[in-house]
Formats: sequence, structure tokens, C-alpha cells
Amino acid sequence: MIDYGQLVLLISPKGKRYLHRLDPAAEVHTHEGRILMSEVAEAGYGRSVATHLGRPYLVLRPTLSDLIKGVKRQTQIMYPKEIGYILLRLGIGPGSRVVEAGTGSGGLTMALAWSVGQSGRVYTFERREEFSRLAKKNLDRVGLSERVEFSCRDIIEGFGVSGAEALFLDLRTPWDYLGQVPPAVMAGAVCGFLLPTTNQVSELLRGLSAGPFADPEVLEILVRRYKPVPDRLRPEDRMVAHTGYLIFARCMGGPGLHAQDPPEPRSDPEPAD
Amino acid sequence: MIDYGQLVLLISPKGKRYLHRLDPAAEVHTHEGRILMSEVAEAGYGRSVATHLGRPYLVLRPTLSDLIKGVKRQTQIMYPKEIGYILLRLGIGPGSRVVEAGTGSGGLTMALAWSVGQSGRVYTFERREEFSRLAKKNLDRVGLSERVEFSCRDIIEGFGVSGAEALFLDLRTPWDYLGQVPPAVMAGAVCGFLLPTTNQVSELLRGLSAGPFADPEVLEILVRRYKPVPDRLRPEDRMVAHTGYLIFARCMGGPGLHAQDPPEPRSDPEPAD
Amino acid sequence: MIDYGQLVLLISPKGKRYLHRLDPAAEVHTHEGRILMSEVAEAGYGRSVATHLGRPYLVLRPTLSDLIKGVKRQTQIMYPKEIGYILLRLGIGPGSRVVEAGTGSGGLTMALAWSVGQSGRVYTFERREEFSRLAKKNLDRVGLSERVEFSCRDIIEGFGVSGAEALFLDLRTPWDYLGQVPPAVMAGAVCGFLLPTTNQVSELLRGLSAGPFADPEVLEILVRRYKPVPDRLRPEDRMVAHTGYLIFARCMGGPGLHAQDPPEPRSDPEPAD
Amino acid sequence: MIDYGQLVLLISPKGKRYLHRLDPAAEVHTHEGRILMSEVAEAGYGRSVATHLGRPYLVLRPTLSDLIKGVKRQTQIMYPKEIGYILLRLGIGPGSRVVEAGTGSGGLTMALAWSVGQSGRVYTFERREEFSRLAKKNLDRVGLSERVEFSCRDIIEGFGVSGAEALFLDLRTPWDYLGQVPPAVMAGAVCGFLLPTTNQVSELLRGLSAGPFADPEVLEILVRRYKPVPDRLRPEDRMVAHTGYLIFARCMGGPGLHAQDPPEPRSDPEPAD
Repeated sequence: MIDYGQLVLLISPKGKRYLHRLDPAAEVHTHEGRILMSEVAEAGYGRSVATHLGRPYLVLRPTLSDLIKGVKRQTQIMYPKEIGYILLRLGIGPGSRVVEAGTGSGGLTMALAWSVGQSGRVYTFERREEFSRLAKKNLDRVGLSERVEFSCRDIIEGFGVSGAEALFLDLRTPWDYLGQVPPAVMAGAVCGFLLPTTNQVSELLRGLSAGPFADPEVLEILVRRYKPVPDRLRPEDRMVAHTGYLIFARCMGGPGLHAQDPPEPRSDPEPAD
Repeated sequence: MIDYGQLVLLISPKGKRYLHRLDPAAEVHTHEGRILMSEVAEAGYGRSVATHLGRPYLVLRPTLSDLIKGVKRQTQIMYPKEIGYILLRLGIGPGSRVVEAGTGSGGLTMALAWSVGQSGRVYTFERREEFSRLAKKNLDRVGLSERVEFSCRDIIEGFGVSGAEALFLDLRTPWDYLGQVPPAVMAGAVCGFLLPTTNQVSELLRGLSAGPFADPEVLEILVRRYKPVPDRLRPEDRMVAHTGYLIFARCMGGPGLHAQDPPEPRSDPEPAD
Repeated sequence: MIDYGQLVLLISPKGKRYLHRLDPAAEVHTHEGRILMSEVAEAGYGRSVATHLGRPYLVLRPTLSDLIKGVKRQTQIMYPKEIGYILLRLGIGPGSRVVEAGTGSGGLTMALAWSVGQSGRVYTFERREEFSRLAKKNLDRVGLSERVEFSCRDIIEGFGVSGAEALFLDLRTPWDYLGQVPPAVMAGAVCGFLLPTTNQVSELLRGLSAGPFADPEVLEILVRRYKPVPDRLRPEDRMVAHTGYLIFARCMGGPGLHAQDPPEPRSDPEPAD
Repeated sequence: MIDYGQLVLLISPKGKRYLHRLDPAAEVHTHEGRILMSEVAEAGYGRSVATHLGRPYLVLRPTLSDLIKGVKRQTQIMYPKEIGYILLRLGIGPGSRVVEAGTGSGGLTMALAWSVGQSGRVYTFERREEFSRLAKKNLDRVGLSERVEFSCRDIIEGFGVSGAEALFLDLRTPWDYLGQVPPAVMAGAVCGFLLPTTNQVSELLRGLSAGPFADPEVLEILVRRYKPVPDRLRPEDRMVAHTGYLIFARCMGGPGLHAQDPPEPRSDPEPAD
């Protein structure tokens, strides 16, 4: 039995994916027939249900990567391949306080909110109201928006946050906002950036080398999928060749630049402490 | 001020990395001179200290990817590029209960323990005692071993766990243990595998298609690093071309096969619920 | 002035390519208007002509890679990225005698014929008559078929050729024909293979290790294209992820196995001699 | 029997390669013992000889890619993966006239000379005398220098060549020499460039868009090798991640800019004519 109101991932025999909230009265219309939500609820996660035309669909609990892929988008896409690496590289975990701009459709916001847990906090900034609203809606849908503070404004005046452990900027001209970073983060915090062109990467590296930033890293992540056929194993014909370059650097401290320690005790202290 | 006993990452002007626990009486010996730990403590995170020869070293709080890279190894390496994707794909977050075998040197174990937080639990299995001890030591070092249950035994008799949300097998012949998976996990749980050769991938896919597994995915992740020089931006000359193939599948339920729901309430429930 | 009967490559302002034979009376119909072939001939290579709607099209002499891309296809595609490497690896040059099976649509055949020159010879074998005819037509179109001997038959009875310097098999089960290779080539000849799946690569490697083959190599070639915009340089969004694995090996000689020297003098001897 | 004076490729049981000219009196010293050249000559291509310690070495006729790998280098390396694609993309074949600068160690020069045959011609330019001499020596060694005209001078005054079908610049600042290209080539000729950094690619694209160049293409080629073990097929652990970006464009003609047709008849006309 799945409780009503929960999110359910349905997968067709051909691998098509549907993300739905369980609603007792609802039906899902697929190309292969209708599925009654009441039957989905009764089947439970890890089982399959049949459409009215007899086609079996898998009923699954969506994981974080399913939820991210299910985000309603109006902006450029950030893929799980980048998000997974970002989480690890920024050291996001239960209790983390992290700053993000721009919010976009909220794909990375969702992953950050998931990972910081109930004791952590995500501060996300977006200039365009339509995106901020969309992201809020996307986070609401998966029950994670309580961990997030959405701000709809330009960050040129600063973030109004201090002592964050990590920060990520997914902006067109992040070098214009590097001065706003030190007051917002702990000394030594990891800062990350996503940029689509090599010219922007060069420009950002110039900005970082001028500011209080150290240990820069530039990389890109490629995922290559295979057709999962045991006797004819081979890569898929085509793949995503580029979403963006990832850049990371440490924001170093200095006299008066920014506070070294987080301003408030966390219930779930950083594990290495 | 950094408290004694904490882990500190020191980075040399050339980018060489040293992970050390702060000890008031200790010195770090580098190729560029000695560093006094007392000075490191006083400087604090996000500052730099000088060796006795005047070379500046960055003092940083290690993040999860630094800690993983600092793991003492006796086994094949799993890289952050794979680990980040695995966490996301398995849906690991605060409160998760996850099963892993084999433990190896504990690199993935560390990432899992970090991500599940204090309310989650990692069950890890390793047949060879030397590895199990090494992994325990690696987790102790970063203060994460309390979240982990280390078992040093073959898993052929089963995991002795039930209702885990996710499972990862980093074994040479995972197809030999697929029958042990359903009793250990919730119906529909994501299961992941890492295998170095294409022959093993084919063998595993055969096993998965015979068992109660669905929605298989096979992929590999490539990370390409760039020299972070703004006016001469270019990829590094060489890169890691292969660590292994990642395989994921959902372990489906069936009458009597395995319980659908987690056996115990979690303090930090899965966000989408 | 371009002589009538010559091949001309027309490129639209958006990069769309048209390969045509110059015919005084003909017109080319594009989405952006009609182009008179008489005007193309008068403009000459390296100039542009306007459609009747005023859109400028480049007039170019097609090079080998343009001709290959212009091949009419009924079979799986071999790309210039593979073909260039194959030519180099097999050591194809003016005067070479080379064996190929199957012919397919003739893409590789064309490149081989181009490279061996008038003093070389390509022996190509194809079981299915429709493909053999198509390939012949494709080679006729670019004026290269005189250098090629087309055979439409199974190669299980052998190639009926001896002393070839190189051989390439683009077949589904090349391991079934390895016994036919030694009589056809010089001792030590490079043999190449293209196979789409890892299972086939394993099977071929097994066959090669049993036969008189040495120095095996397996590789794949990836081409990543960039949008040629100076101020927004970035890779294209998607790329071809797989056409096939290339395998190369040397066919070693032995008593009575095959003749070591080419049976006939070549007018353009191999340069290194 | 191999004639004395010919080049021979010896391959050790572990795959180590030795390129030698056959000299009756000589011995090759390997880590696994001495090999008598007289025995190599007697064995012939495609056979194996034993060192005085009984280790078998393969005796092979080197192909073009073996010769390129055997080039004595003092400069940055161009790999077969790039060279094969360049030959195809420039449309180099028997009878081609092609211009190249700089010569470097002569790796590409060798491939061009091989491919143009006895009826073609390679004009290569190099400013530094030591490289020009080295390249000449490398081409002499493989018997290809007669097809090449070596010039040791700056190309800022022009190439002193006209009507070449193709041109390749492997220079640090090729945009400084774009004005010299049109007088040297046929209208519509394919021009190629190799550059290591993204900044240089942007700079060149700016230059090309200002000059009489059209249809630009930017790409990179990656080769991934596999361990050729049938039952444990897997990519090698590491690979070359970057040699350079390849850029191609057509040099368009205009009134008075450059002659459209080659100045002299070729004995081996371009196949498509």
C-alpha cells in the first residue's frame, strides 16, 4: 500500500518514465492505456500494475535522480552527472548550510535540499520571478521546500547570509559577483561554478586569481550509457557531449574579510570534526 | 583557531595535498620545509601558513572529496566521479539505510556514512579481514565509523539486514549474490554495481534479467580536467580512461520475496514522502 | 570555370551540404531557392553563387571526406574518424593492394580506392548483391571504380587474392573467416576489423589468439565537435558516442601458410623500402 | 629474406617496439638479449626471431603509423589519431600538392609525403634550422624526402608556392599568417590548423571570420584503447586526453586573390574529376 499524496514513478515496458502524485480518484493516461491510481496504491512500490490494455508498468519510489529528472524546466538543464559531483566536491551533507545562485528551475536546489537534511539550510537566489516561483513549486512538489530560503533578487548587493560552508553560482557572469562571496561563506569554503563556454571559464579564472580564491579546478564530466543487452553490449549511439564546465575554488579568508566559523551551532556537526 | 584533533588539509604552492589530524606537538615535513601544527591551529581554516623555509601552504577544512582521496588504500580505487553519481542514483540522503559489499578500503563507505547522517545507517560487508580493519580505521579517522556496521564475512549466507533502501555491490562476481539481495532491501530498492570488464557486465546483466530486477542501466563516467590558466586554457594531457562500469537496477518485490516497507521508523523521513 | 561532369559541393548559409555532378541544363532546388548549374560552373570552385532568392551558396571541390559523407547508404555507417585512422594504421598509400569485406555501401572502399591511386588495387567482397551494386554505383559516381575489383560472393571459400599488403573485415562474424586471411595477404600484413559490440570483440580476440595473428590492438575513436563561435566557444550539445570498436592485428607467416612477398612488382614501391 | 637497407619493426613479447634499418653486421640489444640482424633478414617479414636468450621477437614491415611513431622528436607530438583525420579531411591522395608549416619533427610531413605518392609534392616550412634538419633526417630515414621541399624560413613573406590543394599550419599564432594563405592555394582549398589552447582557437576563429575563409569546423579526437584480453575486455586505465584542437576552413577565392586552378597538370588527376 502506498499512502495517497506520495510521489510515484511509473516506468513503461519501453522505459518511458512518469512521475505522479498519488491521488485516489486519478488515472494516468499512457500511450499503452490507462492506469488507475487506486491500483497503483494497492500494488505498492516495487510491484507492477497493468494498463487497461494489459501492459505492465513498474511502480517505484522515485530516488533523488528521478526527482531531478522530473523537474519542470524553463531553463538550461543541469544533469545528475554534474550534480552528484558537485555535492561531493562541495562537501554537502546533513546539517550543511549552502548558498546558491541562480536558482533556475531548481534542479540543483532540490539535490542540495535533499542532502542537507532537516538540520541544514539552502539559501537560493534568483533574479527572475518566474524561475524563482517555478523552482519553489518544484521543491514543494517533492516536499523539500521547507529546507530552502528562496530569494528573488539580484545578488549584486550581497547574499545577506554569513558563514555558509559552500556556495554554488550558476550565472552567466559569475565574475561580477565574486566580491559578494567572502562575506557569505566561512573562510576556506568551497565555491563552485557552472559555465557553458571556454571564454567564460577564462574570464572566471581571471576573476578568481584576482580575488581571495585559491586551489582552482576546472573539469567536465561525460556520461556514456550502454544498451543493457548481455549478448550485444555496446554504448548507445549518441550521448550528451556538453552541458558545461565545472569550476571549483576555495574562498580564502583574511583580516576582516569574513568570519571563519559558522555563526550558529548545527545539530548535526560536520563528520570530520 | 582550529581545535586540536580536527582534520586539516594542507595544500602546497604546487598543489600537493596533505591530510593531517591537528596535534599540538606535531610538525609536518614537506619537500619545502617544516610546518608547525601549532601555527596551523592558530592560523585557522581558510588562511595560509609558512614552512620554516618561507613557503606558503593553504590551511583548509577537508570536504568529503578530500577525505575520500585521503583514504589509505590496499584495493582498487573508486573515484569521486563515480561516488557522486552513485549517491544521487541510489538516492542516499539523511536517514537512509544502505547495504554495501565489499567494503574494500572504505572509500564508498565513507561517502555513504557522510550522506546518511546521524539518523541513517550503513551496513558494510567484507570477506577479507585486513580490508575490513583498514576501512574501519579509515572511517574512524574521519569520525564517521559510528554510523557504520562493519561485518567481516562472506555474504553468501545473506546480509542479515532487511528493508534497506539501497544496496551497492563492488564484488568480482556480483551475479553469485543476487539471490541474497531481495531479503535485504525494500521492494523497488535501487541496487548498484561496479565492474571493471565488459564480460562481467554481460554476466551481471544475464543474472539481473533472471532475477527479480528491472530497469537496468549501464554507464561509465569520464572526468576531464583542464589546466586552470585563463590565457592558455586547455585539457590536461592525460586522464583516467577507466575505473569501471556502473550498473543500476531496481530490485522488484513479489509475494513472500521481501517486505515492502522499512522495518523501523526513521527520524529523518525520505523527503518525497 | 568548372568542367561539366565534375562533382561540386554546395554549402548553404546554414551549413547544409549538397553534392552534385555538374550538368549544364540542371538546376538544384534548395529550401532557399533554385541554383542554376550553369552559374555554378561559371563561378568556379572557391566562389559563391546566389539562389534565385538571393541566398549565397559556397561552391567547393569535394574532398575525400565530403565524398564519403555523400555516399548513398543502405547499411550501417562508417565515419571519417574511423576511416582516417584505418588508412594510416593499415599503411594504405599509392600502389597498395588491399582486400576488404564486406563492401557495404562502399564508404571505406572509396577511401581505399582514393588512397591507393592508379597504381594500387582494392579487392572488395560483398555477399548481398544489392549492396555490391550500390557500392559500385557510389564509386562510379566519384570516378574511382576502376581501381576496385568488386566481387559479390561469400568469402568462406577464400578471397582468390594473394600477397595483399592489408586487409579489412567489416563483417558480423569475422572470426568465421580468419582461416581465409593468411592465403590472401603478405606475411606480416596488418588486418583490421570493425565490430559494434563488446561480445564480438571478445569473440574476435579469441579467434585471433588461436590463429596466426599477433600484436592485437583494440580501440575506439571519439570525435567531439565545437560550435565555431570565437566569443562563445563550446562543444556541441550532443555527439556520436559509438560506431564501433576497431581491432587490428598482424597476420603472421609460417611454412606453407602464405607467400611473404607481393606476387607482382608495383610501379610505386612502398616508400620505406 | 629482407633486403639490407630496409626498415624493420621488431616487437618484443611484451609489446615493446624497435624500428631499425637492416645492416648485415649489426646487432640489436634488447632487455631480453641480443638479436642478430642477419637472422632478421633471413627470417623475413611476418616471422619471429629469437634473442640469444631465447625470447621471440616479431619481425614486421613498418606501416605508416609505425613510421610516424618512430620519428625522432624534439617538438610537441602529433598523434596518428589526428594525422589520419587530417589526411582525409584535407583530401590528400596520390598526386596532391600540399603546403605545411611548421615542419616540427616531421611527423605530419611524413604522412603527407607517404600519401601524395611519387607524383605529388609536399612544401614544408620551418623557421628553426634544428627542427628542419631533424625532419629532413626523419624523412630521409624512411625514404620519403624526395617528395618534400624543405624550406627553413619564416613564412611571413609568403610561401612562394601557388595553387596547392591543401594547407596545414601547426604554428603558435597561425592568425598572423592567414594573409599568406590565399596566394598559396587553389580557390576553395581546405586549410587545417592544430592548436593546444581554447584561447588560440578563439583567436584563430576571429582571424578566419575576417579573412576569405568559410565553413569553419572545430573538433578534437579522442582515442581510447582496450586491453586485448578476450575474457577480461576493458579500457586501459589511462589515456591521452589532449593533444590539440583541430580547426578546418575553406580558403575562398575572389577577384585577384588567387588562381583557381593548379598551375601544372598532375600525372595522377584527382579522382572525382
